[in-house]
Amino acid sequence: MIEDLVDRLRLLRTPGIGPVTFRQLIARFGTPGAALAAVPDLAQRGGGKAPALRTRADAEREITRVEKLGAKFLVLGQGLYPRLLSELEDAPPLLIARGNLNLLDRQAVAIVGARNASAAACRFARGLAHDLGQNDLVVVSGLARGIDSAAHDGSVSTGTVAVIAGGIDIFYPPENEERQKMLYERGVVVAEMPAGTEPRARHFPYRNRIIAGMSSGTVVVEAAPRSGSLITARLAAEAGREVMAVPGSPLDPRAQGCNQLIRDGATLVQNAADVVEAIRPFASQVRSTPSHYEMAAEPMNGEDALGVVEELLGPSPVPVDEIIRLSAVPSGAVQMALLELDLAGRLDRHAGGKVSLRPA
Amino acid sequence: MIEDLVDRLRLLRTPGIGPVTFRQLIARFGTPGAALAAVPDLAQRGGGKAPALRTRADAEREITRVEKLGAKFLVLGQGLYPRLLSELEDAPPLLIARGNLNLLDRQAVAIVGARNASAAACRFARGLAHDLGQNDLVVVSGLARGIDSAAHDGSVSTGTVAVIAGGIDIFYPPENEERQKMLYERGVVVAEMPAGTEPRARHFPYRNRIIAGMSSGTVVVEAAPRSGSLITARLAAEAGREVMAVPGSPLDPRAQGCNQLIRDGATLVQNAADVVEAIRPFASQVRSTPSHYEMAAEPMNGEDALGVVEELLGPSPVPVDEIIRLSAVPSGAVQMALLELDLAGRLDRHAGGKVSLRPA
Repeated sequence: MIEDLVDRLRLLRTPGIGPVTFRQLIARFGTPGAALAAVPDLAQRGGGKAPALRTRADAEREITRVEKLGAKFLVLGQGLYPRLLSELEDAPPLLIARGNLNLLDRQAVAIVGARNASAAACRFARGLAHDLGQNDLVVVSGLARGIDSAAHDGSVSTGTVAVIAGGIDIFYPPENEERQKMLYERGVVVAEMPAGTEPRARHFPYRNRIIAGMSSGTVVVEAAPRSGSLITARLAAEAGREVMAVPGSPLDPRAQGCNQLIRDGATLVQNAADVVEAIRPFASQVRSTPSHYEMAAEPMNGEDALGVVEELLGPSPVPVDEIIRLSAVPSGAVQMALLELDLAGRLDRHAGGKVSLRPA
Repeated sequence: MIEDLVDRLRLLRTPGIGPVTFRQLIARFGTPGAALAAVPDLAQRGGGKAPALRTRADAEREITRVEKLGAKFLVLGQGLYPRLLSELEDAPPLLIARGNLNLLDRQAVAIVGARNASAAACRFARGLAHDLGQNDLVVVSGLARGIDSAAHDGSVSTGTVAVIAGGIDIFYPPENEERQKMLYERGVVVAEMPAGTEPRARHFPYRNRIIAGMSSGTVVVEAAPRSGSLITARLAAEAGREVMAVPGSPLDPRAQGCNQLIRDGATLVQNAADVVEAIRPFASQVRSTPSHYEMAAEPMNGEDALGVVEELLGPSPVPVDEIIRLSAVPSGAVQMALLELDLAGRLDRHAGGKVSLRPA
């Protein structure tokens, strides 16, 4: 088992291997070890240099560091890894969590919103989080200032999950250090990035997909137009989860984002009862259906589809489905060819399952 | 023409003849005069006493009074009678209006809301009314305190219609006397009840159906749960018009009605642009399609269906459509039988086109 984790870490921390590629390698080769062994050949067939695989020593060092921090690894599709999160195509192959891991096994609702929210909105978020806790729901948020902090505070006694953008041991924002330490003890803190990683702007959308992905629904409380909270809401919608927003007066500029979300189809919620009603359809899904990840991989065809697939690709992103249709090659073989191009550093993956050939 | 109006008034002011019965009498007999002549016989066939028809002198007195007040009668389906209002099954057969009657010929939006609205909401309603006026829309409201008054004030220079529950010459609420006088001059005031009628509680829902019925859509600004504004919204929805609501914080109890409306499917609006977008589909309907009223009446069958229909009726309301289906009698003859029972004081008409036999 530890051997399996070492191999997973070596594969995942290898530059150029993201969550989607990781998932496909496992689907194709069955185990992380077999995938690791295959990567150099695949990259060569794809016409590139083999990526520099992370060493066993690197992986063992990371495992030791995480253990010393009192944190645990969670493996996609196994144990307490959040079931709903595993349904995302780009679900993190590994999470690092510190605290009460059992909280990850319960139905969850995300509460997100502005860092500079009004005092009234923060009070509202705290009360909503408290009331959701009374309804046996775990509250997920991002440990940011403002709404996020209020959501954690309101649900700390019933169950709260803080997903952070940096490493499990990095306090951000600095003024939340005490709150984060408290959540190690009384909630659970979850990170995707390796320990020691300082959070950067590009990490926050990744963090947001975890918040949205592990939750039956996402409630947005006071969000500016084009804010990170609206990205979380969009990711929740893309994952087929319930998007909810708390309305506000049009005279209040801080209500614009939420009001627009409602105009765009989000459910208007005023209290915990509204949220409970909205997410009811998800209650049975938290622990019942197998995730994509656990479903058997489609049998793949060994024949060389690479040339056909490469010819169909260009610099403009096209859906993988279209490549499969146009190539008249079995989809397993197309996926294999894409994997080879990916590992050779010649493929770009885009939102919505699109791919393009990377300009030379 | 004046003769026609005299007959209409005699018919309409006869006790027991409401808007639906009035419409059916005209559809059956072609002219108000012919309908008047037929009423005694119809009532007798229905098994009741003939209603006491209003006299010619009564009608002439009312016409003189309205003329002296500087007001005009508007006849359903004719002239400047509001086109969209004429589509209601229970559209008022006559309206009395004082002011700039041409405003009734333009596309209109209703703005309604709480009498005890917050200052911020009143300011919002005034601004919204102003901005809708800038978009060539007439604003309709009910000349109540609070939101209604603000809506009129914001649109007085571009076009505003005040629909009142009492007679055209009655100032209600008393503190709006100056505003009502101003609207005689700069807008238009519309009443369904005879001049001199003091408004009573039961008149307000009738007034609300006119507000909703003459408008492409109704915007609710701050309304308490179970308030008159929500009745107007429901009437607008039943008439197939756009229902819009301005959201507010769940922390503000005055926002509950509007937030609930949005949860129930009303369009969230934050400004005039949102309203203009929502009512766009109605723009072509204001002056284009013939109303039900003007469509040729279905030919009626003279044979006596009364016994059959009477047998199918009981004290529980049933849809007229069901009576037609069960009776196997032509629908015109069923309508005729219902009309006879109605004029005999033996029929009750209910919402949704249902009827029942009045308990003896």
